[in-house]
Amino acid sequence: MAFQVPRGTQDILPGQSERWQFIENIAREVCSIYQYKEIRTPIFEHTELFLRSVGESTDIVQKEMYSFEDRKGRSITLRPEGTASAVRSFVENKMHAAAQQPVKLYYIGPMFRYERPQAGRYRQFVQFGIEAIGSEDPAIDAEVISLAMSVYQKAGLKNLKLVINSLGDQDSRSAHREALVQHFQPRIGEFCADCQKRLAQNPLRILDCKKDREHELVQSAPSILEYLNEESAAYFEKVKFYLEELDVEYTVDKNLVRGLDYYNHTAFEIMSNAEGFGAITTLAGGGRYSGLVKEMGGPEIPGIGFAMSLERFLAAIDAEQAELPIQSAIDCYVAYMGDKAKDRSVSILNHLRKAGLSAERDYENKKLKGQFKSADRLQARFVAVLGEDELEREAITLKDMESGEQQEVSISDLAEVILSRKNGK
Amino acid sequence: MAFQVPRGTQDILPGQSERWQFIENIAREVCSIYQYKEIRTPIFEHTELFLRSVGESTDIVQKEMYSFEDRKGRSITLRPEGTASAVRSFVENKMHAAAQQPVKLYYIGPMFRYERPQAGRYRQFVQFGIEAIGSEDPAIDAEVISLAMSVYQKAGLKNLKLVINSLGDQDSRSAHREALVQHFQPRIGEFCADCQKRLAQNPLRILDCKKDREHELVQSAPSILEYLNEESAAYFEKVKFYLEELDVEYTVDKNLVRGLDYYNHTAFEIMSNAEGFGAITTLAGGGRYSGLVKEMGGPEIPGIGFAMSLERFLAAIDAEQAELPIQSAIDCYVAYMGDKAKDRSVSILNHLRKAGLSAERDYENKKLKGQFKSADRLQARFVAVLGEDELEREAITLKDMESGEQQEVSISDLAEVILSRKNGK
Repeated sequence: MAFQVPRGTQDILPGQSERWQFIENIAREVCSIYQYKEIRTPIFEHTELFLRSVGESTDIVQKEMYSFEDRKGRSITLRPEGTASAVRSFVENKMHAAAQQPVKLYYIGPMFRYERPQAGRYRQFVQFGIEAIGSEDPAIDAEVISLAMSVYQKAGLKNLKLVINSLGDQDSRSAHREALVQHFQPRIGEFCADCQKRLAQNPLRILDCKKDREHELVQSAPSILEYLNEESAAYFEKVKFYLEELDVEYTVDKNLVRGLDYYNHTAFEIMSNAEGFGAITTLAGGGRYSGLVKEMGGPEIPGIGFAMSLERFLAAIDAEQAELPIQSAIDCYVAYMGDKAKDRSVSILNHLRKAGLSAERDYENKKLKGQFKSADRLQARFVAVLGEDELEREAITLKDMESGEQQEVSISDLAEVILSRKNGK
Repeated sequence: MAFQVPRGTQDILPGQSERWQFIENIAREVCSIYQYKEIRTPIFEHTELFLRSVGESTDIVQKEMYSFEDRKGRSITLRPEGTASAVRSFVENKMHAAAQQPVKLYYIGPMFRYERPQAGRYRQFVQFGIEAIGSEDPAIDAEVISLAMSVYQKAGLKNLKLVINSLGDQDSRSAHREALVQHFQPRIGEFCADCQKRLAQNPLRILDCKKDREHELVQSAPSILEYLNEESAAYFEKVKFYLEELDVEYTVDKNLVRGLDYYNHTAFEIMSNAEGFGAITTLAGGGRYSGLVKEMGGPEIPGIGFAMSLERFLAAIDAEQAELPIQSAIDCYVAYMGDKAKDRSVSILNHLRKAGLSAERDYENKKLKGQFKSADRLQARFVAVLGEDELEREAITLKDMESGEQQEVSISDLAEVILSRKNGK
């Protein structure tokens, strides 16, 4: 019986997995430099957590969650995103009491949404995200945004577009909300059923509607920026000032919104401008929130974060044809002639590996010619050939595959010779 | 409302996550040296996959799987182990046709078993494992075992015990099985109900029974080693010879068995001998298998692999009090006095980070004294202090926190000065 990977998921195979490792390492390195520390939360959480944090009215909760009952009848859900779990853990572990504030966290791992499978969209996908919880300094907003940009830039991406907006504070948003209702009310009949519901619940989300995005009233809707009170406007100015200090280019997009109530102030998205990247151009999105920590049972402190899809990150790298400097060549292939040499090759291989050299040998009883073919395939920098004659002298022939040069070296010196030749001495 | 991590799972927090990163990096490095490549399979698979590969009669399948129906009514299961998925992917992606054989894979990731939570046992746990598929060379058996040992040793573990056994080939196992039945049959009434069933189904598993392990018939049971045919005995001799060639110490334990039919030849376990490690001493287990690839729909080729629990790996490190060389100190803390300096500190911080230095500043409007406290807490190697006077001269005071030495440097030179001082120049 042949089995297949579940629909909407994928295997990441050798040849591809190195690319994932590479961008994950970049993310980890940048986080280390910016002093964000890794948090690892479970793959599943109590379903209620996401109802509360992501919001019961969202598409994610309504249609896309992998929820099921465990053997005790408790409803658990494969996490659809990372912020809820990070904030849950922040509260559960009382991190607001840590001496160093804000608490700066990052996560990398699989998330799950039951969506219709399509090119570049998977039901299991990987997100890298950060959360800085416990500070309202606008410098943190700029730091979070520039960290995301740094990660992309370190991987060689050039065609990036950053858009930012401010959603203001509670007061600003109330004033804006009222203006939106007045703007849409008279012609709400022209909008989709979802938007008609949104008018009363959360008119901001009309601006985000995929069906109605071309409607003239969406285009002409009053901007939140016109309704920012003095404090919110000053906050936004400061974020922009710091972005300039950080040499991060941005565009203000007054239609960039976030559907959930606890988002406030800074919102941002990073998109790829690369030609041929296709319809889905958003690489990462994030913003500031307030009230979420409290909703999870913690004190009233704010946070800011982003999440980026690693699938789209890799797709953007492909679209820009950015070369990742992934090293796949091995240091040495150990070839043998005859049974005695074959037996002995095992310890020689081990000797090289213990010295930190990547090394391989044949396990298929290939003739010497076949072994050299394998060495080529593995892009071996050196091939060490062991024959029975040489074995008697405790020697081995080392061939430099770049120069073609050959020399006989003592078996006990082999690792050292390769190490020094490799380092160009 | 306060939420908690689901029962039997854990959050891995900053301070701990670095330890996980450290051992995972060791595993990845060793795999790179030994030429095993990463494969990433989905967190869940079709349930049927595990029924077939892990076996319907096992505890895992009977009691411990997280199985549920997706929105289309298909039964899916959070993977309880890694071999089934790796072999499924091997077959689905026709890796047996790859030019380089055997195919050498590794995986690191969460696995899920619904067990009674107890100290050191989690329902979500992390396994690192490898599979070498497509070779029957006993040198591969030795390589797989020595790779596992290398990973532990690189993390500083010293109190390790390796036990090995041979389960022989099909013929050897049939002969042994018959001998076991004759051995237990006359007194099977003295054994537990499970063992009474096992007598007909799989008498080998009686040797593995936790209830009956002290029974004199278990102690005196005929050993598989006495029933190995010539070929199987020669194979086992060769594995032991290669282990000696690799300087890997081992003990033969004739009672080390594997319950499933497709296991054959080499079986092994690595245990911790550390004092105070507690009852669960097995760190890793593995062995050779045949028939599994075919069961998954592929050709009849053999494989060998192991899985190690990273939770137990870390517990063994704790038991041995092995020190992991984890670097947590930051390179530079940027302190400021006054609003102008505060604003400017953002770009100075950025300048350091872009140069690859880990750096931090205050986001809580602390006074200088409080900032120095933070710097201490972060074990800052240097503190750069920016005052308004210095700012006018485009200068900053750099304090070496090891020597206490202070010097004024130009802001534009700061990163370079720190880099060269850090590298001891």
